[in-house]
Amino acid sequence: MSKKEIILTGDRPTGKLHLGHYVGSLANRVLLQNSHHQFVMIADVQALTDNFEDPQKIHDSVFEVMCDYLAVGIDPCVTTIFLQSMIPAIPELTMYYMNLVTVARLTRNPTVKAEIKQKHMEESLPVGFFVYPINQAADITAFKATLVPVGNDQLPMIEQTNEIVRSFNRIYKKEVLVEAKALVPKVGRLSGIDGQAKMSKSLNNGIFLSDSADELARKVKSMYTDPNHLRVEDPGNVEGNPVFEYLDAFGTDLEKIAELKAHYQRGGLGDMAVKKYALDVLEAFLAPIRTRRKLYEQDRAQVMGMLMEGTQKAKGVAAETLKEVKEVMHLNY
Amino acid sequence: MSKKEIILTGDRPTGKLHLGHYVGSLANRVLLQNSHHQFVMIADVQALTDNFEDPQKIHDSVFEVMCDYLAVGIDPCVTTIFLQSMIPAIPELTMYYMNLVTVARLTRNPTVKAEIKQKHMEESLPVGFFVYPINQAADITAFKATLVPVGNDQLPMIEQTNEIVRSFNRIYKKEVLVEAKALVPKVGRLSGIDGQAKMSKSLNNGIFLSDSADELARKVKSMYTDPNHLRVEDPGNVEGNPVFEYLDAFGTDLEKIAELKAHYQRGGLGDMAVKKYALDVLEAFLAPIRTRRKLYEQDRAQVMGMLMEGTQKAKGVAAETLKEVKEVMHLNY
Repeated sequence: MSKKEIILTGDRPTGKLHLGHYVGSLANRVLLQNSHHQFVMIADVQALTDNFEDPQKIHDSVFEVMCDYLAVGIDPCVTTIFLQSMIPAIPELTMYYMNLVTVARLTRNPTVKAEIKQKHMEESLPVGFFVYPINQAADITAFKATLVPVGNDQLPMIEQTNEIVRSFNRIYKKEVLVEAKALVPKVGRLSGIDGQAKMSKSLNNGIFLSDSADELARKVKSMYTDPNHLRVEDPGNVEGNPVFEYLDAFGTDLEKIAELKAHYQRGGLGDMAVKKYALDVLEAFLAPIRTRRKLYEQDRAQVMGMLMEGTQKAKGVAAETLKEVKEVMHLNY
Repeated sequence: MSKKEIILTGDRPTGKLHLGHYVGSLANRVLLQNSHHQFVMIADVQALTDNFEDPQKIHDSVFEVMCDYLAVGIDPCVTTIFLQSMIPAIPELTMYYMNLVTVARLTRNPTVKAEIKQKHMEESLPVGFFVYPINQAADITAFKATLVPVGNDQLPMIEQTNEIVRSFNRIYKKEVLVEAKALVPKVGRLSGIDGQAKMSKSLNNGIFLSDSADELARKVKSMYTDPNHLRVEDPGNVEGNPVFEYLDAFGTDLEKIAELKAHYQRGGLGDMAVKKYALDVLEAFLAPIRTRRKLYEQDRAQVMGMLMEGTQKAKGVAAETLKEVKEVMHLNY
């Protein structure tokens, strides 16, 4: 990939970030930030679409997410981190794109369908939630992003964006907007400590980047393992066992991990012993992050200053795109 | 009504304005502009919702509508005339309001239902058109308008706006937004020259404020009258006869008009004679408007300068409202 690829990615600020976020996206951002133009959006407007009755939570989470970003090594000097609600070009673009999408097309969006079902909103679907694929197209195109890291379940969102891009460029007879490609990471998700397929704040099964050593120890101790591994001498299953999944994700001593897996599978290795090692591995990973995070937590002005600086930069880029959009729409006065 | 009432009104710039606009709204604006805070919006963004494939028409109509406003006496020194696409607070407010309205609620809006049917958009309804009641709520509330001149068919739009106002103030626990009352004018509409119930550009049955004396004469000559009034000596009908409707709307010599009506009804007065008088009346009304319009047409820079000045003022007012809105939504960074 060339230096010129532009990445747009981000998070809804609905709470602190956890190891699932790290594996699913944060690690990749740190990896890609030097070889790409990377924009990371704290999507507070989007978070409000299903949290509009709890704006204080969104407000507070902006700072927390920013601390998480900085702690894991997203570098505001190379990555443009910005706050969605402070980019007025995004709602403006959304308005214009809404003319190019039919209600019928939105209703068919598989991602939206699935999320509506998951959030039990069938009966009372807010318009804001219904139209957010169009809002997302505005996010992506405002920065002329060419790469958008998404899970497989989000591929229809990229398709919707590209449909808008093609319609817009065709109707207004100029290649103003740019199509984006999905960047589907190899490791998409991490199980929760309860063994559920996805670590998630709402499932209350996460290990947070900000967890103290004590919290971490408590969570690792309580982790779900192989439910049929009752006695130490029994053979155990490493597949679907989050303790081993975490070792694979965060461990560095691959030989030792292979040994432990073999021992666990043939029997004679207790859960307590594996968890003790997993705690060491996770603590080795989280301790420096926790230390850096503490420093940032204590300097709110600096952290928010970094966010505001990135936001100003992003605002300029999006305003430039909006200007081009309005130009070809003859909205230039 | 006190000086403090704030009016928001406006037009979609989809062509020049005609006598129907004058009777239905322009006359009232001239009348109310000194006793009220009046905002007049040239709604180019809204016009694009069903004209997005013809942006040049919208662009060109902005200047035409502005000339029409100035020619009839809307005074930019007392009325704030502004261009919707240059008020970024409106799309921002729209985004936040979209969270407060369900898709089901929008689907039930009678005005939207009727317009969808009228424009044959059932199959391919653009999202922009579907959500425009929410956009309209943003227009109205951005200026904290307390009075919105609307026809009876638009009353559901005001109700939708007020529902949003109440939801917003309740959820965010502060009376930031203001409810609006509908101002339903006595004379809502004028028939077309073809006798259809509504003068309308799309029906091609209008007399435009910018029509030349020749065009006016041609149109009045071709006007629909009483189809059963075949011979001069026949009694004629003045009800549903647009010539008499126009005399009522624009004539000043009420005695003469009463006489003509009586004569027409008992027979002996030909259509040609009535039309000749109607032409005099309309020409007396339109001639000074046409003269003023010509002056403005020749000074595009001045006219657009007045629009830009009003737009800057409106932008400031709307930005202030958005600031208050974002404050109570904890979107203050």
